[in-house]
Amino acid sequence: MPTFQTVRGMRDLIGEEAQIFTYIIAKARETAMRYGYKEVITPVVEPLELLSAKSGEEIRQRMFIFKDLGDRQVALRPEFTASIARLATTALKNEPKPLRLFSVGSVYRYDEPQRGRYREFWQSNFEIMGSNRPEADAEIVLLTNNLMKNLGLQGYAFKIGHIGVVRGILSQEEVDEKTQNAILQRMDKKEYEEAFKLAPNDKCRCMLEGLLKLKGNDCFETVEKIKTYVAGCGKAKAAAENLGEILNLIVKSGCPIQVVEPAFARGLEYYTGLIFEIYIPELDIALGGGGRYDRLIELFGGEPTPGVGCAHGVDRIALALQTQKAAFRVKMGKRVLVLAINDALKIDASKIAQMLRNEGVIVELEIMGRKMGKALEDADKRHADYAVIVGEREIRECAVVLRNLAKREQVIVSLKELAEKIKN
Amino acid sequence: MPTFQTVRGMRDLIGEEAQIFTYIIAKARETAMRYGYKEVITPVVEPLELLSAKSGEEIRQRMFIFKDLGDRQVALRPEFTASIARLATTALKNEPKPLRLFSVGSVYRYDEPQRGRYREFWQSNFEIMGSNRPEADAEIVLLTNNLMKNLGLQGYAFKIGHIGVVRGILSQEEVDEKTQNAILQRMDKKEYEEAFKLAPNDKCRCMLEGLLKLKGNDCFETVEKIKTYVAGCGKAKAAAENLGEILNLIVKSGCPIQVVEPAFARGLEYYTGLIFEIYIPELDIALGGGGRYDRLIELFGGEPTPGVGCAHGVDRIALALQTQKAAFRVKMGKRVLVLAINDALKIDASKIAQMLRNEGVIVELEIMGRKMGKALEDADKRHADYAVIVGEREIRECAVVLRNLAKREQVIVSLKELAEKIKN
Repeated sequence: MPTFQTVRGMRDLIGEEAQIFTYIIAKARETAMRYGYKEVITPVVEPLELLSAKSGEEIRQRMFIFKDLGDRQVALRPEFTASIARLATTALKNEPKPLRLFSVGSVYRYDEPQRGRYREFWQSNFEIMGSNRPEADAEIVLLTNNLMKNLGLQGYAFKIGHIGVVRGILSQEEVDEKTQNAILQRMDKKEYEEAFKLAPNDKCRCMLEGLLKLKGNDCFETVEKIKTYVAGCGKAKAAAENLGEILNLIVKSGCPIQVVEPAFARGLEYYTGLIFEIYIPELDIALGGGGRYDRLIELFGGEPTPGVGCAHGVDRIALALQTQKAAFRVKMGKRVLVLAINDALKIDASKIAQMLRNEGVIVELEIMGRKMGKALEDADKRHADYAVIVGEREIRECAVVLRNLAKREQVIVSLKELAEKIKN
Repeated sequence: MPTFQTVRGMRDLIGEEAQIFTYIIAKARETAMRYGYKEVITPVVEPLELLSAKSGEEIRQRMFIFKDLGDRQVALRPEFTASIARLATTALKNEPKPLRLFSVGSVYRYDEPQRGRYREFWQSNFEIMGSNRPEADAEIVLLTNNLMKNLGLQGYAFKIGHIGVVRGILSQEEVDEKTQNAILQRMDKKEYEEAFKLAPNDKCRCMLEGLLKLKGNDCFETVEKIKTYVAGCGKAKAAAENLGEILNLIVKSGCPIQVVEPAFARGLEYYTGLIFEIYIPELDIALGGGGRYDRLIELFGGEPTPGVGCAHGVDRIALALQTQKAAFRVKMGKRVLVLAINDALKIDASKIAQMLRNEGVIVELEIMGRKMGKALEDADKRHADYAVIVGEREIRECAVVLRNLAKREQVIVSLKELAEKIKN
C-alpha cells in the first residue's frame, strides 16, 4: 500500500514549526486581551450565501464549496469578516458599541500554492464595530504594530491608502459599483493598464494614472499632494482628509513607519475607507492587512454600523520570523527521562515522573521496556537534560540516581530535592 | 435582507464560552508539554482515501465529503488518528521511538445535533507510537486523569475494557473481521440483542451474553472473572491479562477510579487492545476516550508499529465544567477605559493606553468621540474597574484622573505611578 500525502496546497506543521504557530497565536491572543477584544470562535463551515454575500468575485471563485449531507450549500470560510458580521447582526446585535472582537483559526482559499501561500492558512483577526472615528482606524493599525513588535519582527512597514480616493474619483464620473470593483481588483494586482482601460472616459483615466505618480518625501506630504490633486472631487478629498487624520494619530502615537500609496487597492470589495498592509523588506507578500468597511453590517441585514478590522497571516509571520532568524525561543523547562532498572520498580518510576511534572519538569517515562544503556542512548538523541534512574537500593532510601546527560555525571539525590535540583 | 444563521449543527462560541475553550486547550497543551509530547498541526481537509482507510463504516457515513476545485476527493477530518498515522508513515517515519504526538483542533461529523454534540467539535489528541507495553497504555490513561484533575472536574471515572476479549472469542469461532466489526459496532451502541444475532452459533452467542453479566466488586475482581470466563480461549485470556497489567499500573500510580466493562466496545474499528472512556456522573456522554491500535500504522503503509492514543472532547469538557459550575476563572488583569476630555488630547490618551497595556493592564481606548458622561456610563456597563481621564490641566503635570468605577471615587495620579496604582 502506498503512503498517503496531504491534499495539494495543505501542509503539516511539526514540532518547532507548530511551536512558532502557537507562539504567534498566543501573542495575538495576548494583544486582543490587552486591547479589550472579546474572543469569538466561529465555525470553519459557513453557509455559502453568507460567505459570498460580500467577499468579492475574486475570492468567491477560490472558495471550497460543497453540499453537506442535508443538501445545504456550504463553504469553508475564506476569511473571518463575514462570520463576524453574522455575529454582529444576530447574537451580538444588542451589545454596547464599540464592539471589539478577536478570532484566530484556519481559513481556506484555492490559490496556486507557493512560498508563504497555502490553501489552508491561519489568521488572527481583529474587528471594531460601531465607531466611524479615525481613532478606531488608528487603533487597528497600532495594535498590529504592537503585535509585530512583540513578535520581534524587524524593519516592517505599513503600506497605507484610502479606498475612498479612487472610489471618489470613479463616483464623480458616475462609474457603477460593479465596474468600480473590477477596476479596484485589477489595481490590487498592479494590472494598472488593464484597470484604467475600464475607466469610462479619458478624464477619469488620466485622474487615475496621475494618482499613481503622486509621491511625497513622507506620508504627510503624500497626503497633502493627494488633497491638492483631488481638490475638485468632494468625496475623494474627504477621503484624503480622513487618511491624514488617521495618519496623524498613528504617527504621533509612536508607530512611525508608513508608506502612503495613493492608488492602493485590496482584493476584498467591502472596504470603504482606510486600507493597509504590512511588509518586511525580505518578503514581497503582505504579513497582514485590513481596512474600514462601513456598509458591510447593513449588507448582512443589520442596522447601519461602521466597522474597521484587520487580519494577520500566521503562516506568513512564521515565515518572516524564520527569514529574519528571529530569536524565537519558547521558554521550555528541563527535559528528563525517568526509567526504572527493573519491572518491579515501574510504578515508582511512574509516580516520580508525575511528581516532577507537577513541578513543571518535562518528563518522558521509559515505556519501551528497554535496558538502561539503550534508554540512555535514546535520551541523548532526544536532547534530554537528565535521566532519573530508579533503582532498588536508592528507592529504599527515598532517593534516585540523577544523571546529567551532557556532562555524563551522576549523583544520588533524595526525592524531596529532586525537582529543585533538576530545575536548578 | 434576512440575517444569516450558522450551518445546522455548527455553533459560535462567544466571550466566556470561547474563554473556557481556550482554557481547556491551554491545559491540554500544558499536559502535552509536561509529558514530552510533540505538537503537530495537520490540515482539516484530508484525502478521502486516508480518512476512510480505517475509520469504520459508522464514521465514513457521517463525513463531510466533497471534491476540491482540482477534482480531488477530500473530506473534513472526523478525528485526528488517520492524520497522525499519515505523519508516522511519512515525515516522522525515521524518528526514534517512542513517538509521542499531540494535536488539538476542530473535527467534523454529520451527527444529529443534541446537547454536547455538534457537527463541528474540538478535540485534544494524544498518541504514542512504537511501544506495545502496558506502560504506554497506562500513560495515556494517566495523562487523561491528570488533565481532568487539572481542569478541576469532580467525580469523573474511567470506563475501561479490552477489545481483545470480544475479538478473541469471535476469532476462536472463526467469525470474519467484517462481521466482528458489525457486532462491535452494535455493542458500542448497546444494541446487544441485534449484535448477538450476528454471532455464527449458539456457543458464541452465549459466550458474548455471559460476558455482559460479569461484574466484580472492583476492577481487579472483574478482570479475574473475565480471565476465568475466557480461560478456554487463548487470545481472549491474553487480552484479559494485558488489561490486568495496565490496570495495575494505573491504579498503583494513583488513578483509582475505574469501572471495568467486559463487553465494552468503541465505534472506531482500528482498536486492538485497551479501550477506555471517561465520564462524569452528571452527563451520559463520554468526555473523551481512546485505546490501543497495533495494526493501524501498517494499514497506512508503514512498518508494523504498535500505537495507543486518546482524544478529549473540548466541547463536552466545557459542558461538564459548566454543569459542575466549576470555579473556572481565567486570571484577568484590571480593565480600564482611557478617555481624553477633548480631541486635542487624543494622542496623549492613545499613548497612555499603550503604556498601560505594556504593563499588562486591559485597556479600552475611547474611540466613539463620546462626551465623558456617556463614556463612563458605557465603561460601567462593560464592568471596567477604572476610567483614566486625560485632561488639560493634569497632563501638563504628567498626571491623569483615575476614577474607581465601583466606588465612584477619583484621584489625581502621576503617569509614573498609574500602572502600579491600577494593578494595586
